[in-house]
Amino acid sequence: MRMIVGVDLGGTSIVVGTIPEDGHTIHGVDSQPTPVDTGFSGVVEKIAEMVQGSVAATRDDLGGDIEIAGVGVGAPGPLDTKRGLVVLTPNLGWTNAPLRDRVAEATGLPAALDNDANCATFGEWWRGAAQQARIAVGITIGTGIGGGIVLDGKIFHGASDVAGEIGHTTVDSTGRRCGCGNYGCLEAYASGPAIAARAREGLETGVPSSLPDYVAGDLTRITAQTVYDAAKDGDEFAREVVKETAKILGAGVANIINVINPEVVVIMGGVTLAGDRLFVPLIAEVKRRAFRPAVEACRIVPGALTGTAGVYGAVASFKVQHWGTV
Amino acid sequence: MRMIVGVDLGGTSIVVGTIPEDGHTIHGVDSQPTPVDTGFSGVVEKIAEMVQGSVAATRDDLGGDIEIAGVGVGAPGPLDTKRGLVVLTPNLGWTNAPLRDRVAEATGLPAALDNDANCATFGEWWRGAAQQARIAVGITIGTGIGGGIVLDGKIFHGASDVAGEIGHTTVDSTGRRCGCGNYGCLEAYASGPAIAARAREGLETGVPSSLPDYVAGDLTRITAQTVYDAAKDGDEFAREVVKETAKILGAGVANIINVINPEVVVIMGGVTLAGDRLFVPLIAEVKRRAFRPAVEACRIVPGALTGTAGVYGAVASFKVQHWGTV
Repeated sequence: MRMIVGVDLGGTSIVVGTIPEDGHTIHGVDSQPTPVDTGFSGVVEKIAEMVQGSVAATRDDLGGDIEIAGVGVGAPGPLDTKRGLVVLTPNLGWTNAPLRDRVAEATGLPAALDNDANCATFGEWWRGAAQQARIAVGITIGTGIGGGIVLDGKIFHGASDVAGEIGHTTVDSTGRRCGCGNYGCLEAYASGPAIAARAREGLETGVPSSLPDYVAGDLTRITAQTVYDAAKDGDEFAREVVKETAKILGAGVANIINVINPEVVVIMGGVTLAGDRLFVPLIAEVKRRAFRPAVEACRIVPGALTGTAGVYGAVASFKVQHWGTV
Repeated sequence: MRMIVGVDLGGTSIVVGTIPEDGHTIHGVDSQPTPVDTGFSGVVEKIAEMVQGSVAATRDDLGGDIEIAGVGVGAPGPLDTKRGLVVLTPNLGWTNAPLRDRVAEATGLPAALDNDANCATFGEWWRGAAQQARIAVGITIGTGIGGGIVLDGKIFHGASDVAGEIGHTTVDSTGRRCGCGNYGCLEAYASGPAIAARAREGLETGVPSSLPDYVAGDLTRITAQTVYDAAKDGDEFAREVVKETAKILGAGVANIINVINPEVVVIMGGVTLAGDRLFVPLIAEVKRRAFRPAVEACRIVPGALTGTAGVYGAVASFKVQHWGTV
């Protein structure tokens, strides 16, 4: 059986898995902290080691009769996918790092590189919540907000590998300052850290809430997860923060729907843990803001491949880059 | 010579022209007021009459040796391009009007139908400011704000013919009320009527300006054109209104650039009359807000086919719909 190893490289962890070319299962899944301090070479070595580990575990599972065709890697961008470079990653501190070719060298396998949010979207399109869609958009919400677009079974890269950068679209041109230096980006409201910051700011004005009890009074320890937990437990203020997050995400998703007019928008990442409390007001806001024929044509759903969408997508991207199609 | 007639149907006027299949010239251009009061049948008749007039003028120009292969029509949306229907046009008051087939009947020629902003963008891609671009975005700014996306030589329609509806993307989620009922759409700030309304609102607060002199003190007569004229003549307040328009358009264009990552954005319509006074701050705002690799890959230019982009695009759209390619 011909198989491909997928690698999802993030600023905090690396996830690997080995997937047969038909994408029907995944073997040898492993997640380890990214050894950021070891620099580019150290991370490449770690990837190679995890790839070998995943292949060995897969051989154990399947009895040995497998052929490994290559390695697909998803990495934070911006990238130069043609040349296989990570152009810049603030989280990892790399500039023009030749990740694709170094992974190929270190593993002795052909390699492919694509953006992490593109890979997550492509994974959901291939084997997850967006299967069969001719036009799919994915939004990944975590430390940052990323996005990807899949058209006719391929990742849409745009003119310079930037397409789908939904996190830094403006939804409030005079609004909150974003880490990127601008004002009113979607990410400034709805990323994990932004959700936590908005909660902290509210608490600092003295609004009554049980949120401080979740962090022993230390507001700096509040995360988006804390907010979801408190909302679930009935805290009114936490529910308000989730609802506000849903509204602003709804405005961002409506923008995408009006411009791309996709068949499906898949929302991925920690924020989906908030469940219906997030999705119900989010979808209501989209309906309020987007064109009716566009809303009617589009499903808005949580990702189905929790934790491995990026791995599936890295494998699918390898197939497209090396074999022309998934 | 095989030629196609293009029709650009708007709420206020109809423009026609006859174009050889290679797109190198245009003949028999005519513009007449849209007879809105005569209803759908009256408008179809008017279109047929203008098509015949354009063909006759073209025969006069070229000496008769031409073959007319069909008629392409651009119309305000939302449309159902597959079935050739105008689903809804507030300006014309039609619902599910079978425009394509009725024009074909009335002219005795094969016909094609596409959205007006899509056609304008496609025209600029075929013969105007966006030639050769693999990924082009067009923005039409007039009574409303429309948009279109051209990918690999074809209009990108999305899942339900809505793709490219840039005018109703949100740039200020708690901002100005838009005609569509939402708050903070790009169109609520930067359409012709919105520019005029913002100027009037400023004047009503007593800000010093020569603008009232341009309309004999009757502020209801202020249009976007009045604002451009006063700005050109040195009026500080009018210049401020143009600059604000540029900033908000810049945020909208930056959003598109971050999501689509196009090679070119063509800005069309009356607003381009403001020239550098608009384009310089607009481009500065885009640079401030969009990703650098996306900004570097993208030209932002005014349309080159003033008044006939929609006609060229309707012809190009006919070619794609009937012959598969431009």
